[in-house]
Amino acid sequence: MANPAPENVEAKVEELQVNGVAHQEEEEDDDKVTPWEVTTTKATGIDYDKLIVKFGCRKLDDDVIARFERVTGHKACPMLRRGMFFAHRDFVAILDLKEQGKPFYLYTGRGASSGSLHLGHLVPFMFTKWLQEVFDVPLVIQMTDDEKFLWNEKMKVEDAKKMARQNMKDIISVGFDPTKTFIFNDFDYMCPPFYENIVKIWKVVNANQARAIFGFTPEDCMGKAAFPAVEAAPCFASSFPHIFGEKGKKNDIPCLIPCAIDQDPYFRMCRDVAPRLKAAKPSLIFSSFLPALQGAQTKMSASEPNTCIFLNDTPNQIKNKINKYAFSGGQQTVEEHRAKGGNCDVDISFQFLRFFLEDDAELARIREQYTKGELLSGELKARATLEVQKIVAEMKERRDKVTDETVNEFTKIRSLAYQY
Amino acid sequence: MANPAPENVEAKVEELQVNGVAHQEEEEDDDKVTPWEVTTTKATGIDYDKLIVKFGCRKLDDDVIARFERVTGHKACPMLRRGMFFAHRDFVAILDLKEQGKPFYLYTGRGASSGSLHLGHLVPFMFTKWLQEVFDVPLVIQMTDDEKFLWNEKMKVEDAKKMARQNMKDIISVGFDPTKTFIFNDFDYMCPPFYENIVKIWKVVNANQARAIFGFTPEDCMGKAAFPAVEAAPCFASSFPHIFGEKGKKNDIPCLIPCAIDQDPYFRMCRDVAPRLKAAKPSLIFSSFLPALQGAQTKMSASEPNTCIFLNDTPNQIKNKINKYAFSGGQQTVEEHRAKGGNCDVDISFQFLRFFLEDDAELARIREQYTKGELLSGELKARATLEVQKIVAEMKERRDKVTDETVNEFTKIRSLAYQY
Repeated sequence: MANPAPENVEAKVEELQVNGVAHQEEEEDDDKVTPWEVTTTKATGIDYDKLIVKFGCRKLDDDVIARFERVTGHKACPMLRRGMFFAHRDFVAILDLKEQGKPFYLYTGRGASSGSLHLGHLVPFMFTKWLQEVFDVPLVIQMTDDEKFLWNEKMKVEDAKKMARQNMKDIISVGFDPTKTFIFNDFDYMCPPFYENIVKIWKVVNANQARAIFGFTPEDCMGKAAFPAVEAAPCFASSFPHIFGEKGKKNDIPCLIPCAIDQDPYFRMCRDVAPRLKAAKPSLIFSSFLPALQGAQTKMSASEPNTCIFLNDTPNQIKNKINKYAFSGGQQTVEEHRAKGGNCDVDISFQFLRFFLEDDAELARIREQYTKGELLSGELKARATLEVQKIVAEMKERRDKVTDETVNEFTKIRSLAYQY
Repeated sequence: MANPAPENVEAKVEELQVNGVAHQEEEEDDDKVTPWEVTTTKATGIDYDKLIVKFGCRKLDDDVIARFERVTGHKACPMLRRGMFFAHRDFVAILDLKEQGKPFYLYTGRGASSGSLHLGHLVPFMFTKWLQEVFDVPLVIQMTDDEKFLWNEKMKVEDAKKMARQNMKDIISVGFDPTKTFIFNDFDYMCPPFYENIVKIWKVVNANQARAIFGFTPEDCMGKAAFPAVEAAPCFASSFPHIFGEKGKKNDIPCLIPCAIDQDPYFRMCRDVAPRLKAAKPSLIFSSFLPALQGAQTKMSASEPNTCIFLNDTPNQIKNKINKYAFSGGQQTVEEHRAKGGNCDVDISFQFLRFFLEDDAELARIREQYTKGELLSGELKARATLEVQKIVAEMKERRDKVTDETVNEFTKIRSLAYQY
């Protein structure tokens, strides 16, 4: 797979995956990035450039960002201009549609594995909200409660549904517009148009291919092999007749999926399948992972509470977690730090600021001062704490207003404020 | 598997299947009976006694039939008393419920593979109709249009749905009562309560087990592995909230499934799964196969039109098909036949009479006369033709009255004329 010509990368990689090669290679690599596991041995985190080659997607380079700004008339948001969203598949095709005034929609989602979201979960949703404002298109958000039920041996259906509903409240708190956003959980939304797309996807992917893409084993339950089609089906507009009506039935309204790069296998499969179903391929824009407090070797994981900042952590808990756990790129003693300076690339407090601090000038100043040793680790932690507390407080303020009725408003089967 | 103690047969066989043994044995046997293929080398057809041992079900013996007659106050119908329905799983448990006045329901179904049903398809439906009248319980009929779409590479969803609807008209013509019968096709019925049961089944059967039970290979599409749960889910009352309401949610209302023995793998799996889902196990009552015109080595198959009599064949077509194709147990010449007599056990015309002729005395007389050579093959064919023409004509008379509105009446989501 060394240096393939750019235009053939995706086709090549998809071909290799079908033959089971990509999955094997993945296991020989340092970095492990699957929908169920993200780890690396490097303190600077996943090597995303390498991942781009491995997955066969494209780097989201300055040219694409410049085109985005020209087409939309909006300055790229910090996560986009600082490379937190770093890769894509056919994002340019979406920009073409925007330029031509042709329809597309946004699709993102979440598998609810905890009662409250953490900061890492927030990244794709904050970005998606911004993207929806810029593009002004419908947005569908899938809660894969069925996936969580299937993957967690002890979970009950009722608990999976309850968790999905809890998480919806957090997601709504990001500030989505109910007239333009449809949120659904699979267990409650399952309906004939959605099922029809699932069955169509089931028909064109065989067990060997699913195994190559997802790494399933014969000991895995039948549901694991069935599920990828459930995550892929919302890529087809006909899964949502209440939004796209008759026009959506042709499946020629494509979607753009903002998501973390670990979800790529589902959509690689879906992009491979789409032409065979005479449907538009989904486009994707991928984020890197918000690192765990302990360091960029893993991402924040709700099942290990001390790696994350939850949206229901108090300001004091946030302060304590960052002080106690946030991996520091600083030196052992103040004297040494003043002399040698700190390393922003491994410092988790700095990474948080990269994701969430609006002000480019301030971020550059912090980087410079910390690298020179002028800014101490404690001071950097205090600055990151302030920023994280601010985001969590804003979320909490909106969250307090979200009731069961608000959730019903978003999940109701209805048309959105768009005409197709 | 030689001579296991009767009470352990099912458990043993299920255990073996889980380890993949039963499927291997099946292939070494002469008789091949799977949901997708039924063949044998014997002119007398499948060895059903052997199949009972292999599948681990029970023979439907005279004691059970006597108990049935005592509990229901009805004489067993010809198909039951003549051994066309020859085996069962837990049928006696259903008789217990009937005796105690406790609720249960009937579940049967069909995968529509042709525009019109043939006589072989009619067998379980005619029996089910009779059973419903005797038991007076709700009946659900599943049309697996999704299965037909998945198994037939060239089939389109629209065609599978259309075929299912066509077949519903034939099924309705058997004479089912719309106030007590719900007919559905998977593509149009798929809904949250049904999907929830499917996902629960997916979770407790792994790919190895599905392979052992159904013989799937890694080259089969994902949908084949996903589908068995779709056929199993209607065994649980909670799949039909409009029929069973709140009470059905506990899944303690069992069903009785009249079906051809080739469908057993789905329900063996379902019976294995039920206790783990805290649901009642389905009971089953199995029919043998109506033989193909050419002989009992295969069953009637819609994909080979000359093996079957279709419900839309004209009286003349029926006469010609029986005369031309129906395998005869008679001798080569009239003289030889008069001298040696015919063999009813391989004679297809006689087999048709066994299935469909009401009058036991007449059937016994025909057997005696044919065996002695008093009745000629042509005469036997003429008698069988008359009986088949009669059944098809009765079906046609009812079929002519079935409109799209009639179908809508049966498929409508509604409560049936029962209270739970």
